[in-house]
Amino acid sequence: MIRLEHIGIAVRDLEDANTLFARLLGREHYKVEEVASEHVKTSFFQVGESKVELLEATHPDSAIAKYLEKKGEGIHHIAFEVADIHAEMARLQAEGFQLLNAAPKRGADNKLVCFIHPKTANGVLVELCQSIPNE
Amino acid sequence: MIRLEHIGIAVRDLEDANTLFARLLGREHYKVEEVASEHVKTSFFQVGESKVELLEATHPDSAIAKYLEKKGEGIHHIAFEVADIHAEMARLQAEGFQLLNAAPKRGADNKLVCFIHPKTANGVLVELCQSIPNE
Repeated sequence: MIRLEHIGIAVRDLEDANTLFARLLGREHYKVEEVASEHVKTSFFQVGESKVELLEATHPDSAIAKYLEKKGEGIHHIAFEVADIHAEMARLQAEGFQLLNAAPKRGADNKLVCFIHPKTANGVLVELCQSIPNE
Repeated sequence: MIRLEHIGIAVRDLEDANTLFARLLGREHYKVEEVASEHVKTSFFQVGESKVELLEATHPDSAIAKYLEKKGEGIHHIAFEVADIHAEMARLQAEGFQLLNAAPKRGADNKLVCFIHPKTANGVLVELCQSIPNE
């Protein structure tokens, strides 16, 4: 794992949260992106080599909507950048971690991603992500 | 805020969690440190410019013991490195964030720290930290 790529924070209202986090972090978000397949709208703030990703649900079936209902607003997941997501998925599976998707899927911010079940990672939802080279 | 300094994760058993996170992150923790004033034992893993900090309670009155009882194991807080903690505390207070300590206090890993109340920060317990120069 190369670096902490981002921290994902579940929010009820992305516009309100963008204003709040701009005041907290002393900088504006640099983009908003909708990931239709995950039913989320996201925004990103850069802090050093990592990002803060805010996530708003766009559908009641979204994992973020369910998280908000169960736990309220707060830190939803942490993501680590990896050099080779397939190799890292194989390594972690061999180590006994349960992967939530069997193959990498397309995430926000031009990444291939895979999630690890929090029950196998000390209650932490961990995301692996690998940047997709520009074609 | 200069960078994401660390992510703090509440764990029930530091030794077990050190083993688990070594397998997850593919590297060993580089130190264990007890912060008697906070009733916690911590360990640290370096990932890029950030750290993963595991926190075990050493006393039932510890904030970590209460967190574990209420929410179980998981991400407890995120910490940002700042250049001047006094200036940043004043700025955030003026922005309407509620500080949990009025003056910086001594944290783990040779830092001055201050926490922001999660109710004013979208459910996220945010720590500011500034490295203490070696004397």
